Amino acid sequence: MKEIYLDNAAATPLDPEVLEAMLPWLKAGYGNASSVHTLGRQAKVMIEDTRDMFADFIGARSSEIYFTSGGTEADNFAVKGITFSRLGNEAFTGSARTHIISSAIEHSAVIDSLEYLKQRFAVDVTYLAPDRFGRIDTNEAEKAIRPETALMTIMHSNNELGVINDSRSFARIAHSHNRPFFTDAVQSLGKTDIKVAEMECDAASFSAHKIYGPKGIGALYIKKDTHIDKFMHGGKQERDRRGGTENTAAIAGFGKAIELLKSKMKTDIDQYLSLRGHFVKSVKEAFGSKVIFNSPGCGESNEDIPHIPNIVNILLDPGKVNADADTLLIKLDMKNIAVSSGSACTSGSVQPSHVLKAIGYNDRSARSSLRVSFGRFNTAADVDTLVEALKDIIA
Amino acid sequence: MKEIYLDNAAATPLDPEVLEAMLPWLKAGYGNASSVHTLGRQAKVMIEDTRDMFADFIGARSSEIYFTSGGTEADNFAVKGITFSRLGNEAFTGSARTHIISSAIEHSAVIDSLEYLKQRFAVDVTYLAPDRFGRIDTNEAEKAIRPETALMTIMHSNNELGVINDSRSFARIAHSHNRPFFTDAVQSLGKTDIKVAEMECDAASFSAHKIYGPKGIGALYIKKDTHIDKFMHGGKQERDRRGGTENTAAIAGFGKAIELLKSKMKTDIDQYLSLRGHFVKSVKEAFGSKVIFNSPGCGESNEDIPHIPNIVNILLDPGKVNADADTLLIKLDMKNIAVSSGSACTSGSVQPSHVLKAIGYNDRSARSSLRVSFGRFNTAADVDTLVEALKDIIA
Repeated sequence: MKEIYLDNAAATPLDPEVLEAMLPWLKAGYGNASSVHTLGRQAKVMIEDTRDMFADFIGARSSEIYFTSGGTEADNFAVKGITFSRLGNEAFTGSARTHIISSAIEHSAVIDSLEYLKQRFAVDVTYLAPDRFGRIDTNEAEKAIRPETALMTIMHSNNELGVINDSRSFARIAHSHNRPFFTDAVQSLGKTDIKVAEMECDAASFSAHKIYGPKGIGALYIKKDTHIDKFMHGGKQERDRRGGTENTAAIAGFGKAIELLKSKMKTDIDQYLSLRGHFVKSVKEAFGSKVIFNSPGCGESNEDIPHIPNIVNILLDPGKVNADADTLLIKLDMKNIAVSSGSACTSGSVQPSHVLKAIGYNDRSARSSLRVSFGRFNTAADVDTLVEALKDIIA
Repeated sequence: MKEIYLDNAAATPLDPEVLEAMLPWLKAGYGNASSVHTLGRQAKVMIEDTRDMFADFIGARSSEIYFTSGGTEADNFAVKGITFSRLGNEAFTGSARTHIISSAIEHSAVIDSLEYLKQRFAVDVTYLAPDRFGRIDTNEAEKAIRPETALMTIMHSNNELGVINDSRSFARIAHSHNRPFFTDAVQSLGKTDIKVAEMECDAASFSAHKIYGPKGIGALYIKKDTHIDKFMHGGKQERDRRGGTENTAAIAGFGKAIELLKSKMKTDIDQYLSLRGHFVKSVKEAFGSKVIFNSPGCGESNEDIPHIPNIVNILLDPGKVNADADTLLIKLDMKNIAVSSGSACTSGSVQPSHVLKAIGYNDRSARSSLRVSFGRFNTAADVDTLVEALKDIIA
C-alpha cells in the first residue's frame, strides 16, 4: 500500500537526482577533503563549488557560508557562538549579565540552546510572545533591548505554523542598537525567496533535508565581520571556523538539492499552494467549524499575513471533536498516512507543543492539533486520501 | 591509472556492503526518526538496533552510546560537556579556576577545544609531554592533578604515530582522585580490541569513516552516571543528550561497518601487519639510515611499545635526504599515490605537525615526515609501488 507522506516539514524524501549526485562521493570520491592528494583536492573543489552555488542562491559571499551537520548545529553555532564571543570577563563576575532577545515559538534547537545558556552561564533571555498566528511584535523587540543585550534571534518561518516573521524589521531594530541579529531560516529555504542581504541578518541557518537533500548536512550564513566563536572545534576546515572532516557526499547532495531548487522552486511553490488550497477547501467542506486553522493563508481574514506555502496546522476543536492528535496520528498511520502533531524534534516529548501554547492554546487544545506539510512528490489524490481518512476517523 | 590509496587514517574508502546498507535509508526510508508514524518508527528501530550492536561491540550498555556527526563532535561533546558540567559559579569569579590534564599529541579536535576553553573561559590546561614515540608518562599525569582538576583526557592511539597510550592506567589515576577520564579512540576502533570496561574510561569517542563507514557519523560512549552537559542542543533525540534529526542513512552505514568489523577485524589486522612489515623491510632495504621510523612496531627496539598496526610514520632524515614532505606528497600524488604528511585535519595549516614537534623534532624535521596508513583494500603491490616511487623521487 502506498505511503501518503504529508510530513515534509519534518523531513523531505531525497530527490532521486540528489542521490545520483551523492553516489560518486560514496563510491570513488572517498578522500578526506582536507588531504593534499588528488582524491582530497577533488572533494575540496566540489565542496567549494557547492559553497559558491549556495552563496549565490541566497545572495551571500562564498566566504560567508559554513557547512554544518544540519540545521540544529547551525542554530547552536549561531546562538552560542555569538553569545560566547560577547561574554566579557565582567559577565562572569555577576556585575554584568549577558542578555538575549528571542521568541517563544523558536525551534527547539534555538530554545534549548538559550535555556542552556541561562542555566549554565550568566545569560538572561527575553522570550517575546507571539499573537494568535505566531507573529512577533517588533515594538516589543525594541522595548526588550537592554544595555547587556548581546543577540536578537527570531526565526524566519515557524516550523509548526508556517508564519513568516519579517526578519528585516527585527534586524533593523537590532542594528539600530548595534546588536547582531540571527534568524533560523531552516523551513523557509525553497518555500520563499531567501536573500540574506534583503533580510539584513547577520547570520541565518539552513538544512538540506527540508529541501529534498540528505540528512546530516546544513549551513550557517555568517555575514562578514560578525563576531562569532567557533562551535565545533577541531581542524582548520571551513576556513578555521568549523572543525571536522567535511561530509563530502552530503555536501554534494545539498548542492544538487540547491541546483534543483533553482529550476524547480517556482513549480514547487505553485504545487504547494494548489495542494494547500485543495486541502483547506476540503477540510472546510467536511468539518466546517469543527476545525480551526492555526496557520495563516488558509482563506480566512489572515491571507495577508506572510507565510510559507506548504504548512497547514489545524486544531480539531476539542469542544466539538473528541480526538486528541496522538490517537489521530496513530489511526492515520494505520491507513499509511504520515502527518505530524507538530515538530518532529519535540515529538519524543510528553509536553504539548510550546508553539501552540505560545499562540494561546491550553494543553488540551494544543494536543488536538495536526500539522500537514506538503512536498514536491505529493498529489491532489494524497490530499483526498487524507481528508477521507480524517472523515472516517472523526465520524 | 589506479589510485594507490595509503591514507586510510585520514579517511577509509566506504566498504561496498556499507553503501548497500545505506541505500534503503537514502531511498524509501526518508522519515524523520523522531516522527511517530511508521516511516519514522522504522528509522528509529534501525537506529536503536545499531546502537545495541555498537554497544555490544565495545562492551558498553546501549544507553551509554550517543550518535554524533563524527569524531570531532564526539571530542567536543566530551571535552566541553564534562568541563562545563563542572564549572561552578566560583569558576567565574576568579577565585577558583577549572583545570584539565591532557597531552601534547591529542587530535586537533581535542586541542582546539582545550585552547578555546582556556581563552574564553576560566580554564587552565596542562599538556603532558610525550617521549620520542608518543608515550605519556603516567607519573606526570599523577603529578599534574590539582584540586581544581575537572577532567583528564589522553587519546587512545595517536593518529599520526599509531602509538597506544594505556587508557586504563590514566583512568585509574584520574579515578583515584575522583576525576573523570575521557579518551579519543577514533583511530583505535577496528585496529585493536576496544572494550570500554577494560579501558575503565568515562567517555570515549569514535568515528565511522575510519572503519570503512560513511563520513558525517560518529559516536560518544558516556559511562552511566558521568556528569556531562549536552553539546548539541535541540530536540529530545538521543535520550535528550544530543539534539538534531538523526542521520538515518549514516547510522545504518556505521552499523554495517561495525557488523563487518565483527567478521573482518582479525583478517584486517593480519593484513595491516603484513603490509606494514613489508613496507618497513622495503624501506630499510632501499634507504637504510636515511629513514627514521617514528612509529613503534617497526622492527626496532620498540616492538613492545603498544601501537595500532596500520600506521607508519617515517622521517626522511633532512641531513641525508633533501626532501620536504609537501614536495614529496605532490610528487607521489603525480604518480597516483596518496599518503599524508600527518593528520588531514591539520593539513590546511602552515604549521608543522604538533605531534612531531612534541616528540622532539624541530620544524624542519617535522616537515620531512610522511604518514603511510594501510587499509582493508590495500595489497602488497601497493606497498611496492610506493617504495619504488619513493626511490625514484629521492634518487
